Amino acid sequence: MNEVFIGGAGMTPFGRHPDRSLRDLGREAAMAAMRDAALSPRAVDAVYCGNALGLALQGDSGIGQAIGWELGICAVPVFNVSNACASGSTALHQAWRDISAGHCESALVIGVEKAAMPAGQVLEVGAAEFETRLGDIFPGLFAMVAQQHMARYGTTLRQMAQVSVKNHGNGCLNPYAQFNRPVTVEEVLASPMIADPLTLFACCPNSDGAAAIVLRAGRRSARDVRVAASVLTSGTYLPERDFTSWDCERRAALAAYRDAAVRPSEIDVAEVHDAFTICEIVHCEALGFCDPGQGGQLTASGATAIDGDIAVNPSGGLQARGHPPGASGIAQIFEIVAQLRGEAQARQVRDARIGLAQIMGGSQASDAQACTVHVLCRE
Amino acid sequence: MNEVFIGGAGMTPFGRHPDRSLRDLGREAAMAAMRDAALSPRAVDAVYCGNALGLALQGDSGIGQAIGWELGICAVPVFNVSNACASGSTALHQAWRDISAGHCESALVIGVEKAAMPAGQVLEVGAAEFETRLGDIFPGLFAMVAQQHMARYGTTLRQMAQVSVKNHGNGCLNPYAQFNRPVTVEEVLASPMIADPLTLFACCPNSDGAAAIVLRAGRRSARDVRVAASVLTSGTYLPERDFTSWDCERRAALAAYRDAAVRPSEIDVAEVHDAFTICEIVHCEALGFCDPGQGGQLTASGATAIDGDIAVNPSGGLQARGHPPGASGIAQIFEIVAQLRGEAQARQVRDARIGLAQIMGGSQASDAQACTVHVLCRE
Repeated sequence: MNEVFIGGAGMTPFGRHPDRSLRDLGREAAMAAMRDAALSPRAVDAVYCGNALGLALQGDSGIGQAIGWELGICAVPVFNVSNACASGSTALHQAWRDISAGHCESALVIGVEKAAMPAGQVLEVGAAEFETRLGDIFPGLFAMVAQQHMARYGTTLRQMAQVSVKNHGNGCLNPYAQFNRPVTVEEVLASPMIADPLTLFACCPNSDGAAAIVLRAGRRSARDVRVAASVLTSGTYLPERDFTSWDCERRAALAAYRDAAVRPSEIDVAEVHDAFTICEIVHCEALGFCDPGQGGQLTASGATAIDGDIAVNPSGGLQARGHPPGASGIAQIFEIVAQLRGEAQARQVRDARIGLAQIMGGSQASDAQACTVHVLCRE
Repeated sequence: MNEVFIGGAGMTPFGRHPDRSLRDLGREAAMAAMRDAALSPRAVDAVYCGNALGLALQGDSGIGQAIGWELGICAVPVFNVSNACASGSTALHQAWRDISAGHCESALVIGVEKAAMPAGQVLEVGAAEFETRLGDIFPGLFAMVAQQHMARYGTTLRQMAQVSVKNHGNGCLNPYAQFNRPVTVEEVLASPMIADPLTLFACCPNSDGAAAIVLRAGRRSARDVRVAASVLTSGTYLPERDFTSWDCERRAALAAYRDAAVRPSEIDVAEVHDAFTICEIVHCEALGFCDPGQGGQLTASGATAIDGDIAVNPSGGLQARGHPPGASGIAQIFEIVAQLRGEAQARQVRDARIGLAQIMGGSQASDAQACTVHVLCRE
């Protein structure tokens, strides 16, 4: 198996881009990644494009091809990949498979989405699920997660709010973030109730944006970051489930740590899927940053701050950087790459050597549709 | 690289299934393929699901996972793949990559779509294209192909109609086909004009249906069919293009023949993308079954009939089997597998040893978005 490196990364600011197309956003991110990697369009062997909603919302299907063509990338295999919020990271995993196997040398991986809705309109997805039609939409599902976590472990509203406070604070340091205003615990708790106990500032937005990376076989530059593990798995259909953890995430994390030969305690910086505040708490537990039930205390202790033991979501996470579903998984990688290169400026985690990115897609009635965990190393 | 074999294949009848969900159709095809391969759900290492329109038309995103779960396939990597009409075959190509590389041993590949529209409704896709909004929809595009082919090579309306006559005749022999009524040249020519010179019976329908195959490393049974070549490529963006051939198809065919170490004259049976009658003519040329410009004569000579030199679309093709875009690429493989195993009953091509499947996806302004060519062998 070839060793796989990230040679370049780029992204657009996340937020509202009503006047820009999916292709326009994707092209900007892809150009930035290729320029960062000093890779010419002719040297791209394959394109992997993660997008979750483009056909439904923008009537666009061949997005990977269209972005590639506008950049002069022609006549190569192009994969358009969809796995809900894990679409971008699934595209990365697939590219990693192909490069590690020698199917190609250099790949362009794009995550792109336009999910920001006009005021008053609702983003309708998952209508094929019985549970969704009965009201089991994401805020409701994660409100149940929060309720169960509070009941079982004594996790508090203030601890959950502190995730939002930390991530909005980090977002103020990230020029690509959608939100650049700090919030207080009191503001989070007093913001409008969405699904008890999750208030508005406990929820990530639906955003527009794109991120891209260049993946290559072998190291070409001292700035290259090694992909030490790339794991994709799906959930299981359980009649009774524990809402305070996802089996697939635990499996993905274990496999990633095994493949990378690192322990959770060795992770310096992590980007995790904080679609709702409770998610970051649950993911910190599943990824082994603390024991089950201790995620709230971990946050409250400051250990997950940029200057803490394990910096979590220094980018601002989905909460503050914003959440274009197909793009978030690659934006996480963009952040980890910046951190490991020491190029994260005001939000730099000191001496970050090993980073982790985790994202889940499409929570169904029981377990999640997809979970990816990537471990990246500076060497 | 591991040798890759098809161990099982299954499909639903194609046609109108207004009362069945994507998942229901996909499950039927997947179960049939797994039963055919004697593969238990627990032995499936990964799922690759091709679907082009599900999110837009049915609000369904995690289709591969949902089908897998209902069959008891849990906790494995699941890829939802989209490449317009080449969605299913792109999923197959990706599975082939992973098995040939040793990433997994056994994969379930599904193609599924519900594209049949209620009477009076139009299937709207590709709205992101300038050209589409200006009227460059598929019937119009392929009408231009037909016009240019007629002008340059003298291809006749009757020759094109004979593609439809042959394929509708073959469809009468296929229990999975949507249409099982023969048509005559006169009926094809007299059917309502869609886009001059393409009449209704020169066009494939938008259909519902699913097909699935089991892909494995190594041979397990004498009925297994070897994948001798699997090629995916995309087009190039050309300011001026020749409408009578697709550069990406010629490249894909050359690569497939090279990888399989076979010549076009050695192909016994082929399934090609006959979305419109002219397409089959153009594809026969690009695949080297005849010289450029000779596809109409090839058809008229009877050489592409089931008892001809090179049987083309013995299943009835998209014209008669029907065309659920995400499923057609796998239905082609189902047919080639049946032919090479000698299990195609009334439509059996005598002593078929080497088969080929070709499909293209998403014609954009210039070249196609994707083209796959697979070569399968009985040994």
